[in-house]
Amino acid sequence: MARGSSGESVLTRAVRILEVFTPEEPALPVTEIARRASLHVATASRLVAELTGHGLLAREPDGRVRIGVRLWELAFRASPALSLREAAMPFLEDLHAIVGHHVQLGVLDGEEVLFLERLSAPGAVINYTRIAGRLPLHASSSGVVLLAHAGRELQERVLAGPLTRYTAATVTAPDRLRSLLADVRRQGFVQLNGHVHEEATGIAVPVRDAKGEVVAALSAIVPNDGQGHTRVPVLLAGARGIRRSLTAPRSLTG
Amino acid sequence: MARGSSGESVLTRAVRILEVFTPEEPALPVTEIARRASLHVATASRLVAELTGHGLLAREPDGRVRIGVRLWELAFRASPALSLREAAMPFLEDLHAIVGHHVQLGVLDGEEVLFLERLSAPGAVINYTRIAGRLPLHASSSGVVLLAHAGRELQERVLAGPLTRYTAATVTAPDRLRSLLADVRRQGFVQLNGHVHEEATGIAVPVRDAKGEVVAALSAIVPNDGQGHTRVPVLLAGARGIRRSLTAPRSLTG
Repeated sequence: MARGSSGESVLTRAVRILEVFTPEEPALPVTEIARRASLHVATASRLVAELTGHGLLAREPDGRVRIGVRLWELAFRASPALSLREAAMPFLEDLHAIVGHHVQLGVLDGEEVLFLERLSAPGAVINYTRIAGRLPLHASSSGVVLLAHAGRELQERVLAGPLTRYTAATVTAPDRLRSLLADVRRQGFVQLNGHVHEEATGIAVPVRDAKGEVVAALSAIVPNDGQGHTRVPVLLAGARGIRRSLTAPRSLTG
Repeated sequence: MARGSSGESVLTRAVRILEVFTPEEPALPVTEIARRASLHVATASRLVAELTGHGLLAREPDGRVRIGVRLWELAFRASPALSLREAAMPFLEDLHAIVGHHVQLGVLDGEEVLFLERLSAPGAVINYTRIAGRLPLHASSSGVVLLAHAGRELQERVLAGPLTRYTAATVTAPDRLRSLLADVRRQGFVQLNGHVHEEATGIAVPVRDAKGEVVAALSAIVPNDGQGHTRVPVLLAGARGIRRSLTAPRSLTG
């Protein structure tokens, strides 16, 4: 692999450039890209030009650089996340029509939950999730469901901490988290009142594939008003529907 | 930029590797990746290993390689496509509930329409669109709307052909396409009966941003049964709603 004087490969530098863009700052000048990616401006300029040539980055009329639509296309069209999301989408829409507020689909990635989809209603309760956003496993209802069904090694690593506190209700004691995970496996769902934000309750259930493996968490974020448990049955039904869609052959016209 | 003996840069080769995956074949062995990307197996192996290390590719348990969830995350979280899609999503859901079949959101990319979103009903009429899929501008209703509002240079390039025929109804004569584009600009929508598939009618309207620029096409694909025109008003209303969402400040809780 070709490396610069720092010993870093071209690909590593290109990935670092792609990583500097955020939902809050989707377009940046090259000098700022260089600063954030810890690259010389000349190096950053060269890489930005090449990435732009491939359509992975694009230039705004004002010269600022943003993620290109070609990167989105490459990532999306053959992504396993897409088939899961497509199978889940009709059920997410139905749940959203019934539950209101936020419904979302998350998968385990590293030591976090990564949200593939979120449908939100205007005026819904506060929610820190965003599409392609992440939350830690111990605090979010989706994360707790995914962690409860994850491998022992990941569970022990998360239990070893640190378990960041978001509110007074966040579970930060390893023994309490361990027993919560056992409860989730036994009950088949989790309800967390105010663990990420005081005003919000998260309810999550596992989504399984044909083999019974947990591949995602389906969740609703609703007001923390003591009525969260009323959404458990409809979430469980949605998760079963997604499982059926995942195992059914794809229709040509679908 | 570091280059191999063929004069190609590492980034160009990496992009070629990302391009070999398709919705039909999302996971491939390294030898097949090398063949499709026209790379030596050793070169492909090295690049696949590095891309996997960055999470842009991932390995299946059987050793085959697929697009990694990290690529999707990088592409999605700071993509301008995301903000357009997020603004459009509630309106797409409403339209889908009312129109049924397929509703979709497409943007101009190069000389094609790229579909950012599609919602489909079970048993809906045949449709060649898929999310992150493309169709040529002259044949699809979304494409015709986008072409009608594109720059003169692009219009002339597309009119110069070739204009591929999909069905007997596809517009393949440049002068007919030119007058269709003028009609679309005057009427504010297009309805194409059986231009991509005999059984399907596409109806599309432009989506404008705050400045009045056409940034996307909103479309419905319904049966070719002579009733397509009944969907025009609801599509026009949806496009106006998306425009309002695009110009409204994002809420913190949304």
